[in-house]
Amino acid sequence: MTDKTAGVIGGMGPEATVDFMARVIAATPASTDQEHVRLLVDQNPKVPSRQAARAGKGEDPGPAMAAMAKGLEQAGADFLVMPCNTAHAFAQPVRSAVSIPLVSIIEVTVDACREYKNVGVLTTPGCLEAGLYQDALATAGLTAVLPDETEVAEMMRLVAAVKAGDRNEAIARGMRSLAAALVDRGAQAVVAACTEIPLVLTPDMLDVPLVSSTDVLAEVTVAIATGVRPLD
Amino acid sequence: MTDKTAGVIGGMGPEATVDFMARVIAATPASTDQEHVRLLVDQNPKVPSRQAARAGKGEDPGPAMAAMAKGLEQAGADFLVMPCNTAHAFAQPVRSAVSIPLVSIIEVTVDACREYKNVGVLTTPGCLEAGLYQDALATAGLTAVLPDETEVAEMMRLVAAVKAGDRNEAIARGMRSLAAALVDRGAQAVVAACTEIPLVLTPDMLDVPLVSSTDVLAEVTVAIATGVRPLD
Repeated sequence: MTDKTAGVIGGMGPEATVDFMARVIAATPASTDQEHVRLLVDQNPKVPSRQAARAGKGEDPGPAMAAMAKGLEQAGADFLVMPCNTAHAFAQPVRSAVSIPLVSIIEVTVDACREYKNVGVLTTPGCLEAGLYQDALATAGLTAVLPDETEVAEMMRLVAAVKAGDRNEAIARGMRSLAAALVDRGAQAVVAACTEIPLVLTPDMLDVPLVSSTDVLAEVTVAIATGVRPLD
Repeated sequence: MTDKTAGVIGGMGPEATVDFMARVIAATPASTDQEHVRLLVDQNPKVPSRQAARAGKGEDPGPAMAAMAKGLEQAGADFLVMPCNTAHAFAQPVRSAVSIPLVSIIEVTVDACREYKNVGVLTTPGCLEAGLYQDALATAGLTAVLPDETEVAEMMRLVAAVKAGDRNEAIARGMRSLAAALVDRGAQAVVAACTEIPLVLTPDMLDVPLVSSTDVLAEVTVAIATGVRPLD
């Protein structure tokens, strides 16, 4: 059996991609370099802001992401992943550009939530407005517990601070409060549905399970790359 | 001025490449994603062991590394870096495969040591036996303070443990002892001349400056990518 190579459409943001790569290593049973999986990574932070585009205030990132996908396919990737949730609002141009599959972070994360009925979605305005988690949770027969307009704006402020390199205690506390509000409204688990969130918010900070979309995507990437899970 | 894209011949080992990417982010003055530099990364842990090849006991990693270099050039890299010191014993096949420059971790690290006269080289058997630092330090008019055969074998044992995912306190203490032995023999600074070393050994653990080859390469990568430093 030959291992498969994952192509990573990365840089959205750059730290989240590095975190994803670290979690791929942690999820791999290996004691030598050679037992680890191969990743081809386009760490491209220059992709236009997904948030601005969804808000109708910025350049469409679709063409840049499609070009990255094509480059990764040409370089030898067997499948693609994007460690950025909001980027999946632009999954269509990516899928159209290549003949290899894009494994959706939204789908695998919702799959990991099947044991809960009410699932809190901690995310940013662009991801929320695109309805990515709402649609996938509904398809899975689960109920989305969503942040309100004020809460999602506050999360955007916290994520922007993390992207600027700030990871202080107040940011972690702010994210925990936003998660707690979802739990108060009935969430039995909370999805960290933005890959900057697990850079500061950790499972021990919540009273319910925190499902990190980064962790789930990393585990699925390793399972596919090592042949444990088939490519759909 | 357009930013330059660095191609990273990575995965040797995978955690060292992730550490390098994190240090590139840390070395970049940026408050938004888009201000960060683009990296094309071939995180390929499948490259045959550089240590085994140097010891005459394993497959030549040169062809795999040359193929990675070519792939990164074709994908759009403007220059190449390898966050692995011993890999530079195979720099020739890499350079022959491409028409873009390979920025040597050995050269930039020795450059960063010019204020010291006697420079300790904390490294593995493959890197030591290839004479990479000895030659570069001599060319710079500096004196190399080297580990003896027992010390370099002990470092290989510690590096293999780090590659296996072990970062316990005993490993850090072991590396500190090996560094201290170089200081006892006159080293005014110690180079972490293996990119697994700074994963456990930190500057605060030594009485003299610890020059991390990973950090130096990250800083030079950012300087070249942002146009602050010309490509030779």
